[in-house]
Amino acid sequence: MGMPVVGIIGAGQLARMLQPAAVALGVRLRVLAARSDESAAQVIPDTVLGDQDDPQSVAEFARGCDVVTFDHEQVPAPVLEHLVELGVAVRPGPGALIHAQDKGVMRELLASIGVSCPRWTRLPSVVESAFTEAAAFAEQVGWPFILKATRGGYDGKGVWRIDDAAQLREVLDGAAARGVELMAEALVPFVRELSAQVARSPHGQAVAYPVVETVQRDGVCREVYAPAPGLDADRSAEAQHIALTIAREIDVTGMLAVELFQAADGALIVNELAMRPHNSGHWTIDGAVTSQFENHLRAVLDLPLGAPTPHAPVAVMANVLGLDLPDLYPAYLHCMARDPGLKIHMYGKAVKPGRKIGHVTVLGAGLDDCVERARHAAAYLRGEIDE
Amino acid sequence: MGMPVVGIIGAGQLARMLQPAAVALGVRLRVLAARSDESAAQVIPDTVLGDQDDPQSVAEFARGCDVVTFDHEQVPAPVLEHLVELGVAVRPGPGALIHAQDKGVMRELLASIGVSCPRWTRLPSVVESAFTEAAAFAEQVGWPFILKATRGGYDGKGVWRIDDAAQLREVLDGAAARGVELMAEALVPFVRELSAQVARSPHGQAVAYPVVETVQRDGVCREVYAPAPGLDADRSAEAQHIALTIAREIDVTGMLAVELFQAADGALIVNELAMRPHNSGHWTIDGAVTSQFENHLRAVLDLPLGAPTPHAPVAVMANVLGLDLPDLYPAYLHCMARDPGLKIHMYGKAVKPGRKIGHVTVLGAGLDDCVERARHAAAYLRGEIDE
Repeated sequence: MGMPVVGIIGAGQLARMLQPAAVALGVRLRVLAARSDESAAQVIPDTVLGDQDDPQSVAEFARGCDVVTFDHEQVPAPVLEHLVELGVAVRPGPGALIHAQDKGVMRELLASIGVSCPRWTRLPSVVESAFTEAAAFAEQVGWPFILKATRGGYDGKGVWRIDDAAQLREVLDGAAARGVELMAEALVPFVRELSAQVARSPHGQAVAYPVVETVQRDGVCREVYAPAPGLDADRSAEAQHIALTIAREIDVTGMLAVELFQAADGALIVNELAMRPHNSGHWTIDGAVTSQFENHLRAVLDLPLGAPTPHAPVAVMANVLGLDLPDLYPAYLHCMARDPGLKIHMYGKAVKPGRKIGHVTVLGAGLDDCVERARHAAAYLRGEIDE
Repeated sequence: MGMPVVGIIGAGQLARMLQPAAVALGVRLRVLAARSDESAAQVIPDTVLGDQDDPQSVAEFARGCDVVTFDHEQVPAPVLEHLVELGVAVRPGPGALIHAQDKGVMRELLASIGVSCPRWTRLPSVVESAFTEAAAFAEQVGWPFILKATRGGYDGKGVWRIDDAAQLREVLDGAAARGVELMAEALVPFVRELSAQVARSPHGQAVAYPVVETVQRDGVCREVYAPAPGLDADRSAEAQHIALTIAREIDVTGMLAVELFQAADGALIVNELAMRPHNSGHWTIDGAVTSQFENHLRAVLDLPLGAPTPHAPVAVMANVLGLDLPDLYPAYLHCMARDPGLKIHMYGKAVKPGRKIGHVTVLGAGLDDCVERARHAAAYLRGEIDE
């Protein structure tokens, strides 16, 4: 039937959640996994075991794929450049992806196109010089401030809040010992966090999803409210415009998530970029006409994009973070019986404390009710509530 | 994580469409396929090749499954009874499934519980006796009437409209030559066809989906309108009540579809039963909070059932029947660009004239608009429209 093959590097839950969209479209997925029991490998027959850091292994995987895309951004640039040299369609391309891989490159780009960011500076690798520069930076922007690894951080890892000189030295020493490059950023006094997601295809079409509010705890996303409660139409359009501008300027193909701080006066400041389906868009699987996973596939295949229209006035997503309940399935009985509208998504991952092992979504007319339903189910599924 | 394994006998598109629901729930599917390129085998890693007519082959397949269910009803009773003897949870069980396998058994059951059916009679296997009895039956109910194979018919196959004695003899001769058992049925002067779907679990919980109208051509379902346009609330409740009653009386587990004729005076007459996800419920994938596929899994696993609530006032599904376009993918460009709300589902099947190779669904506020959108897309995808 002439259906294309989409290769995915990485076999986590984002690759897994591409499979339902691919099943519907008749598009074939091939996934590069490190182990045969990874989340996506459990549900995609064409699973190839290989090393994503090895250019030959990845090139072999890519043979026969019409396009190659990603479960995560941590694929080394030389591996991607090798694919491009071989003529493989890599989407997003390495030139775009670098802005999600390296926060320094991202900040420079955003500054150059006039998008609001926290004040920041790169730090040198020598600890003494880094200490002097960071302390001087803190004197300008105020203590406490933020240190970030420019590469490899996620879910709160690679981000430190620095209250004093002793803490500064400790983090700098630790980073130097592991060869981690750092940058310093002003602590933004935000009142909440938002996420603006867009899909963009190689020929330049783009669609913007409703802007959502994300609730983090310990640097990890816990809940998402779609649309962001009380966000006025102008501010919502501004957030969408920022995401569309970034997508165009750096030639993103596929999904782009722009994580934003919102200040007390309403102003928007860009925090992070993600160039793939994103946790802040999981609500779209059940809550929108076209999920972020379907639109990611459509975008990387350069097909016309689908409507991001929501099904209900409110959608709330809550992550299920592993606690100590090894066997979640019995909790299905309570959760499903309590709430016939609950949508459960489990990733087939072993339970480890703090690990994202699934999520739930509920749709409804009112925020408070939806938050209560989603929060209860996420807590019960992880074993937090005894009743 | 203690997640159950659901075995599916048969690897057609219904088994395929169970996979997205299973991916979300974290439930593992194992499918028994005749060939590795069948529709479901393409998307379910745990595919076992085997012969569904061979008790040993099916028993081996079932080992390690927590429950076994079906893509279609054409599994021989001795195969199922062997599974039950081995202690395998077979859902629906052979005692329920026989009512979808044998139209004579189904008609007897429906008569015994007072559900309205066409007048009918079993015919003997000897052609001369069958001719005499069928002709006498036709004199009572009027010509033309219907002959049906009691077993194995689908999509208009195994059903003949008999206008005269010559045609009667021809069909009887053909059936006798192939060893096909027949029954005669009165031709019901219906104005439209409806389908009432329910899910029912072993502990007796059941949910009813909105009653839909199905539009057939040449015995094959072409379009489904959800909910059935202009069906008054009492009649809708009556159809749901019929389906719930049948499900309870014959102890159905999983999805049950009751296909109904509606007469000019509004009366409902049962035509066929299907005990599995059904073409008349494909709209629920995109159009309801819980799809028929998810509820089938939840039902056979004896989990609480999900809400059948629709997302929009109207959903229209149109089947894509193969014509002569071997490569459908280029048609995606036109269809997706014309209608960003269109939901395309392709089954990974080779194109053959008249074969169901996919379907499309659209949601909206008005029936006429939705029908136009779905009909256009289904026609274009099969290659019917040159523009």
